[in-house]
Amino acid sequence: MIIVMERNVDTEKIRMVSLRLEEKGFQVHLSQGVERTIMGAVGERTQAIMELFETMAGVEKIVPIVQPFKMASREFQSEATVVQVGNTIVGDGRVQIIAGPCAVESRERFMEVAFKVKEAGATMLRGGAFKPRTSPYSFQGLEEEGLKILAQARELTGLPIVTEIMDTRLIGMVAEYADLLQVGARNMQNFFLLRELGKINKPVLLKRGVSATIEEWIMAAEYIISSGNKQVIMCERGIRTFENYTRNTLDLSAVPLIKQLTHLPIIVDPSHGTGKSKLVEPMALAAVGAGCDGLMVEVHQNPSEAWSDGPQSLTPDNFEKMVKKIMAMKDALDNLA
Amino acid sequence: MIIVMERNVDTEKIRMVSLRLEEKGFQVHLSQGVERTIMGAVGERTQAIMELFETMAGVEKIVPIVQPFKMASREFQSEATVVQVGNTIVGDGRVQIIAGPCAVESRERFMEVAFKVKEAGATMLRGGAFKPRTSPYSFQGLEEEGLKILAQARELTGLPIVTEIMDTRLIGMVAEYADLLQVGARNMQNFFLLRELGKINKPVLLKRGVSATIEEWIMAAEYIISSGNKQVIMCERGIRTFENYTRNTLDLSAVPLIKQLTHLPIIVDPSHGTGKSKLVEPMALAAVGAGCDGLMVEVHQNPSEAWSDGPQSLTPDNFEKMVKKIMAMKDALDNLA
Amino acid sequence: MIIVMERNVDTEKIRMVSLRLEEKGFQVHLSQGVERTIMGAVGERTQAIMELFETMAGVEKIVPIVQPFKMASREFQSEATVVQVGNTIVGDGRVQIIAGPCAVESRERFMEVAFKVKEAGATMLRGGAFKPRTSPYSFQGLEEEGLKILAQARELTGLPIVTEIMDTRLIGMVAEYADLLQVGARNMQNFFLLRELGKINKPVLLKRGVSATIEEWIMAAEYIISSGNKQVIMCERGIRTFENYTRNTLDLSAVPLIKQLTHLPIIVDPSHGTGKSKLVEPMALAAVGAGCDGLMVEVHQNPSEAWSDGPQSLTPDNFEKMVKKIMAMKDALDNLA
Amino acid sequence: MIIVMERNVDTEKIRMVSLRLEEKGFQVHLSQGVERTIMGAVGERTQAIMELFETMAGVEKIVPIVQPFKMASREFQSEATVVQVGNTIVGDGRVQIIAGPCAVESRERFMEVAFKVKEAGATMLRGGAFKPRTSPYSFQGLEEEGLKILAQARELTGLPIVTEIMDTRLIGMVAEYADLLQVGARNMQNFFLLRELGKINKPVLLKRGVSATIEEWIMAAEYIISSGNKQVIMCERGIRTFENYTRNTLDLSAVPLIKQLTHLPIIVDPSHGTGKSKLVEPMALAAVGAGCDGLMVEVHQNPSEAWSDGPQSLTPDNFEKMVKKIMAMKDALDNLA
Repeated sequence: MIIVMERNVDTEKIRMVSLRLEEKGFQVHLSQGVERTIMGAVGERTQAIMELFETMAGVEKIVPIVQPFKMASREFQSEATVVQVGNTIVGDGRVQIIAGPCAVESRERFMEVAFKVKEAGATMLRGGAFKPRTSPYSFQGLEEEGLKILAQARELTGLPIVTEIMDTRLIGMVAEYADLLQVGARNMQNFFLLRELGKINKPVLLKRGVSATIEEWIMAAEYIISSGNKQVIMCERGIRTFENYTRNTLDLSAVPLIKQLTHLPIIVDPSHGTGKSKLVEPMALAAVGAGCDGLMVEVHQNPSEAWSDGPQSLTPDNFEKMVKKIMAMKDALDNLA
Repeated sequence: MIIVMERNVDTEKIRMVSLRLEEKGFQVHLSQGVERTIMGAVGERTQAIMELFETMAGVEKIVPIVQPFKMASREFQSEATVVQVGNTIVGDGRVQIIAGPCAVESRERFMEVAFKVKEAGATMLRGGAFKPRTSPYSFQGLEEEGLKILAQARELTGLPIVTEIMDTRLIGMVAEYADLLQVGARNMQNFFLLRELGKINKPVLLKRGVSATIEEWIMAAEYIISSGNKQVIMCERGIRTFENYTRNTLDLSAVPLIKQLTHLPIIVDPSHGTGKSKLVEPMALAAVGAGCDGLMVEVHQNPSEAWSDGPQSLTPDNFEKMVKKIMAMKDALDNLA
Repeated sequence: MIIVMERNVDTEKIRMVSLRLEEKGFQVHLSQGVERTIMGAVGERTQAIMELFETMAGVEKIVPIVQPFKMASREFQSEATVVQVGNTIVGDGRVQIIAGPCAVESRERFMEVAFKVKEAGATMLRGGAFKPRTSPYSFQGLEEEGLKILAQARELTGLPIVTEIMDTRLIGMVAEYADLLQVGARNMQNFFLLRELGKINKPVLLKRGVSATIEEWIMAAEYIISSGNKQVIMCERGIRTFENYTRNTLDLSAVPLIKQLTHLPIIVDPSHGTGKSKLVEPMALAAVGAGCDGLMVEVHQNPSEAWSDGPQSLTPDNFEKMVKKIMAMKDALDNLA
Repeated sequence: MIIVMERNVDTEKIRMVSLRLEEKGFQVHLSQGVERTIMGAVGERTQAIMELFETMAGVEKIVPIVQPFKMASREFQSEATVVQVGNTIVGDGRVQIIAGPCAVESRERFMEVAFKVKEAGATMLRGGAFKPRTSPYSFQGLEEEGLKILAQARELTGLPIVTEIMDTRLIGMVAEYADLLQVGARNMQNFFLLRELGKINKPVLLKRGVSATIEEWIMAAEYIISSGNKQVIMCERGIRTFENYTRNTLDLSAVPLIKQLTHLPIIVDPSHGTGKSKLVEPMALAAVGAGCDGLMVEVHQNPSEAWSDGPQSLTPDNFEKMVKKIMAMKDALDNLA
């Protein structure tokens, strides 16, 4: 890190900061300009260390140099992480397609849509069993009954299943049924949950928080990895901006950035990322252009009957057309490479 | 809610939407303009109902009219809620001042600062016992040991204590020691946690999420209230914007808005809201000008030794000077009223 | 528009609003619910009209229903606008590629890069002649000399040229040399400039303001169109969010949205939209996936020697590789359609 | 500035960067850590210089250290700038109050409100003569006729007048009538306009752009000052965030920050900053708490008849009550100091 001293600071203050840096195990390099002294401090910088020096007399600001994440970084591991989800692989250069309704509504409905999306090209199934929503007065999910339906769908279709985990008390139950445990945007910084997910033997799909910087998002992955679980897949699902036509602003630059900064695979959710079914196909194609490892798309046989997220759900027909375009585009790009 | 139909939509689609509305218990009022038909639908609108109609053929958009929150609204309860926290009252027109360090670091240090802030005018004590932070490599808190120190400080100073609750599994333990349970910004939409806090008999301090709209924040309060606990205090602590000089942008317009839209008391946290100790006093005075019921301020006897949040902590001396100004300002405003 | 009256408002206030609406030429439809009265008002709603009713006694809020733009809307003109720029066409289903350096630095350098990008597949040339920047101490452009170099490049390469117009006093001069006049993000709401550009006979490339909503951006196009110039091309170039790894957050959902809401062509600028050369290719491919009509890319023969925007400029080699991928991808999508 | 080299970069690249730095007149200080080399470069850093080094081989990133503004900074001039506006002074420790309608609508109406606000305590008058708005279909202002009315109001009331300047071609005309020329939020980065305003002998009121960082805003002031005009007053008027209850989010932390970073006075506009008349008084009091040098408030004798900004305008009565509270609060704070 760099320590920028105030203009015309006296020598004594510089000496105090310098001593303290050495005390904390840093190597110190002093640069004295005409107006200002700055110190390069080489060593392990943590948030606490930065705050400590930021408050010392004579210090104007601390500039972090090295990224705060380690085990998630490309520097730590140069080859791409490949994550096994049931019988499928995420991160090997192909585009995996996770599809299904927002919430599991009933056994019959889920099976129907599961077979339809499989036929259309989906390689994993999604569906929510626990659905606490912004309003306490909305549908809250089928809970364990929903998890059982998901497990049955896996047996019947052969596709792995993805579902959300929202509370530390439910990890055991959800991990028993699901192939991939999704951490929702609202829980991206639920550190108790992240730590527990670091101790299980199932892969984790980590959605970006709606106002999380890319660095914070990678730090959340670091929590899981440093707690022992290296099977982490990132999921971009839109950030909150001032724009109101869309539910969120899908930040596709996150795709190449995550690939450059980390070794983790990344998928994109254009359904939550836009909130409008008419935008799902163009943004899914855009995500593939940006280089994602997969997509997660909400599909419902009858969006106007969906218990949640109807406005952003595709019909199985529209989903099928979209998958065809994705495949054609992906082939064209692969043939060039 | 209002249902706006597409331009030149055919009569059959209007009829279908109308029938469906009646089926769902809505009273329907049709307005047919030259270009467009809109329908006023009077009845209980939930998120699910809005999504249902948004996906019907011929519908362009749904416009919600009435606010989604009920029990938290001024319309539901016109007199202001007054919350009892230990022997102190929040929301009765006075400005309560919660002060203390970010984290409880040791018994000695906490007691020292507790007596200093009490002397300077603080009416409640704060301190964190569980401190999982953005980085998994930072200090994580003294946990139950920290809670015990807080409880001792209450006995010795006579001031009620506030501390954060972060996981459903810890509610029992934290509620045993604390007078006011704080829900942090990152947990504002942890619906499992909110629901459980609705079942306890201790007041809750609900911080605004860093990217939460005021409506979402009130909906989070609604979760707690509708689960049975009416003792909720709101806390504005800054939202995330593009501005980087400050850690967050303190949104003081939230103070009069919460007072107009709800019956709940609201306090302001200028320490997290700015991230810089030099901005704490001016923003605290601003918050009192805006009409808040209290302030929450980080104070540490030696900010450069603090284990966390040093850069935004006041010294006891600066805290004392600030309290004097707050009191003078508050008196001047009260004398006019 | 919809007028939502306050809860339990008295009949007299409803009558006054209703009379006033009729006075202003609106047809009024009254919906009286148990709790609330709302009025549908059919007629020409302007900003001033909305503000007028918002301040009348008993009114809680005004909800606009119809979009504020007219001549730019798909409803006004259902077929796509095709814009002729010199000998090239934008908006006919192909992807046009505008390339060149941020600033025109010298005749030699510009000609060199112009021929290189033409060879690699560019169909228009870009280059800035007026370059006032955030800092008054930076290079400010070659001014008219730069425009002359651009015009020479057109003659030598046969490609049309695009350059920025920043001040009403310069419109005559710039229009004399350029084929397409670019309005930069900072001038998107410079209404004096927009109005003057509505009176010339050259097409206008309208960049989105860094914090402009899509509606405001379309309203800016409406300014130009309603002043007499229908040749408007939209350009998405990133919006400002809290994310800092990228210079801006490229909002690709703007591409399908502009196509659905208006009849205007839209191109994407991944250079300004990301600020990092390593992100330009993936975001350009993403933009084509989203359905854009063109791209605008900064290319410099030696980015570390560029007088501005070096970090986001491609080399001619990287540009060539990117164009190949774009063409392969576009072909694959066109073959399917 | 600091140059951070890539991990394990080879010595040759370090040498090349180092040579180039010296060539550009920088003093270089090398810090070689185990993992990374960083270079402190002492000298004049401009945007162009930063971009140049950012693109050199082996460079990971450039970290600016010193602020880019000079003449506006507290370091350049430690005593506060005091600006003379007609017969009034801004920046001498008092709170000046600018009041009046959004637009000058007619001679009679303006005189009426001018006398009312003067009586209530206003010390300057405001009113818009040129009003191009987001919609080309709205009222566009009385233009020169409006300026004449403003000048008459000054003669009759003795109060200086403030009005907006929006186009370089109008500077002569507006400067002839007004005492203080306001640059609106949308023109904060209209560098042609800023440069011309640097050449006149009238003070300038510089509103913050709706998505401008504080640094960019100060750089805009630097444009004016470095062009020759030191009489600049800053005006905070709200920034764009995701929050929708308010028109903008008033960022009051800008008040102490501008005072700490620059020597310029700062006033606050709670009318545009909130967009709602019910929020104007609490936010005005908050602004005074934060330490502002003045307020700018929209007042209209009959807000529901205002041609623009009615919903955020106070009546003269409400304005008077607010001024009383402001004065009481200011006195209380001054007595303490």
